[in-house]
Amino acid sequence: MSRLLIVGSVAFDDLELPSGDFKNVWGGSASYAALAASLFAPIDLCAVIGEDFPEEHLATMKAHGVDVTGVERAKGRSFRWAGRYDATLASRVTLDTQLNVFADFRPKIPAAGRSAPFVLLGNIHPALQYEVLEQTTKPKLVIADTMNFWIDGERAALMKLLPRVDVLVINEEEARQLGQHHNVSRAAAAIRAMGPKYLVVKRGEYGALLYDDGAPFFAPAYPLEDVVDPTGAGDSFAGGFVGYLTRVDGQGGQIDRAALRRAIVAGSVLGSFCVEDVGPQRLVTLRGDHVRDRLLAFKQLVHVEHELDALTLLR
Amino acid sequence: MSRLLIVGSVAFDDLELPSGDFKNVWGGSASYAALAASLFAPIDLCAVIGEDFPEEHLATMKAHGVDVTGVERAKGRSFRWAGRYDATLASRVTLDTQLNVFADFRPKIPAAGRSAPFVLLGNIHPALQYEVLEQTTKPKLVIADTMNFWIDGERAALMKLLPRVDVLVINEEEARQLGQHHNVSRAAAAIRAMGPKYLVVKRGEYGALLYDDGAPFFAPAYPLEDVVDPTGAGDSFAGGFVGYLTRVDGQGGQIDRAALRRAIVAGSVLGSFCVEDVGPQRLVTLRGDHVRDRLLAFKQLVHVEHELDALTLLR
Repeated sequence: MSRLLIVGSVAFDDLELPSGDFKNVWGGSASYAALAASLFAPIDLCAVIGEDFPEEHLATMKAHGVDVTGVERAKGRSFRWAGRYDATLASRVTLDTQLNVFADFRPKIPAAGRSAPFVLLGNIHPALQYEVLEQTTKPKLVIADTMNFWIDGERAALMKLLPRVDVLVINEEEARQLGQHHNVSRAAAAIRAMGPKYLVVKRGEYGALLYDDGAPFFAPAYPLEDVVDPTGAGDSFAGGFVGYLTRVDGQGGQIDRAALRRAIVAGSVLGSFCVEDVGPQRLVTLRGDHVRDRLLAFKQLVHVEHELDALTLLR
Repeated sequence: MSRLLIVGSVAFDDLELPSGDFKNVWGGSASYAALAASLFAPIDLCAVIGEDFPEEHLATMKAHGVDVTGVERAKGRSFRWAGRYDATLASRVTLDTQLNVFADFRPKIPAAGRSAPFVLLGNIHPALQYEVLEQTTKPKLVIADTMNFWIDGERAALMKLLPRVDVLVINEEEARQLGQHHNVSRAAAAIRAMGPKYLVVKRGEYGALLYDDGAPFFAPAYPLEDVVDPTGAGDSFAGGFVGYLTRVDGQGGQIDRAALRRAIVAGSVLGSFCVEDVGPQRLVTLRGDHVRDRLLAFKQLVHVEHELDALTLLR
């Protein structure tokens, strides 16, 4: 059975949402990604938590098949983020960021994680992401996230990392910033020239694009009627994406462009569940049959019957 | 052979684009829609032009199978719009609008157009759109566009029109405004309760959603590397959409939800061509084989191989 190593943040969030204010919500990119990926594959998690982080959340992850040996408990408080969403949930402002124990985080990958064939580098300093790869023994596929802060301020470290990344997963604005072109297709070409064979561009409520050597692929986000909390949706997408690929590999399947397209859909499904409740709550209760049902709904969403007959209908 | 009646504006645009300033560009919602739809079906066009409008453009439309009997030449100048796009082409400001002969436009549908089974009501005053329908003899399918200006200022006239509209085609912001809900799925439900059986929500560079009694359908916009001028893309989408349906009907096909889904793809294809050159120039030179090629590229864009095996890959 192929395993997946996930490195990133495990944290607390204070969320001001249209539905209310929520304090000390379990958060962090690695938490969302691990819970989402756990639907598909066993996970080795590497992160740092403070003395304030409850055993209960670690137990929840363990129950989902996440090995938390690599989660280091350090002296002090856990990473904390506070944000306020607007009434439409389309935009948010950061109210507070406290790195706390995360400030001195140096990932130490436990033995099992070092040989994991799949690696998801959550959004941490690109030099730390590189350090993680130095500890691994020839992963088959490395997926990385990053953000505007590192693209702006740590471009050199990022450029050193990118040749070792197989799939870069970033949002549309980050793609424009990194690729230095407003047109996303042109930005994608520039980014792929920096190293990553594949680029996934997350478009939030609109979906995600996959760029590779061939024609691009697009999967829409599922149009939900009730979106409660977008926090972690992108991380859940990344987790579902790479979790699915890990599973394919474990079953002896090829990690080719067809598999990556299916992985985009799997990621979209996990992202769509994530936003249905506050924090990672929906991911905690998510079962395989829920995922199956929504995969079928996704299929319907883009399904065109007899599409080729359109080709014969020109004047 | 089924015919399509299109009513809307035929105009001149002054465009300030990143690629340069262009004066007296042939424009108007009905021009774009008619040229796009003409790839699929014969058109009856109803509009008003001033003394300044060149015969050459009318001749171009005729050459594309557009009957311009219903295009009235009135005393005065043609409708004029001037706009400036930002460097990314993502937003634009209106610099000037001169209604000119359009101010007193009262559509008079010629005999052939009155019995057309398909009707596209371009974005004009909803009371005029209603007047057009009063002149028609039982169309099979009525498609209408509208805009924020009428939604805000002429809500009563719009509410009178909507029960007679089968497919409303509007953009995402207009859908939120008309449906009075930020969540597009909820707004769509509210709008469909106002009359239209189908709602198409245009999302610009992201694509289009189709809402009906069943699950929603989404078609992405084609990710182009070179977008020159977005003017008329929405009108070209609407023209391609209803033109395709007219053709299906003319071939004895059913106008059901499967046909509407294919029509969304056809509309997306026409919209993607429109933006490749200034004004309607690309639509003028467009041939059936170009449309066929891009329909195939669209198919690839959303194609997922063996997608169901994802369902068996859960832990």
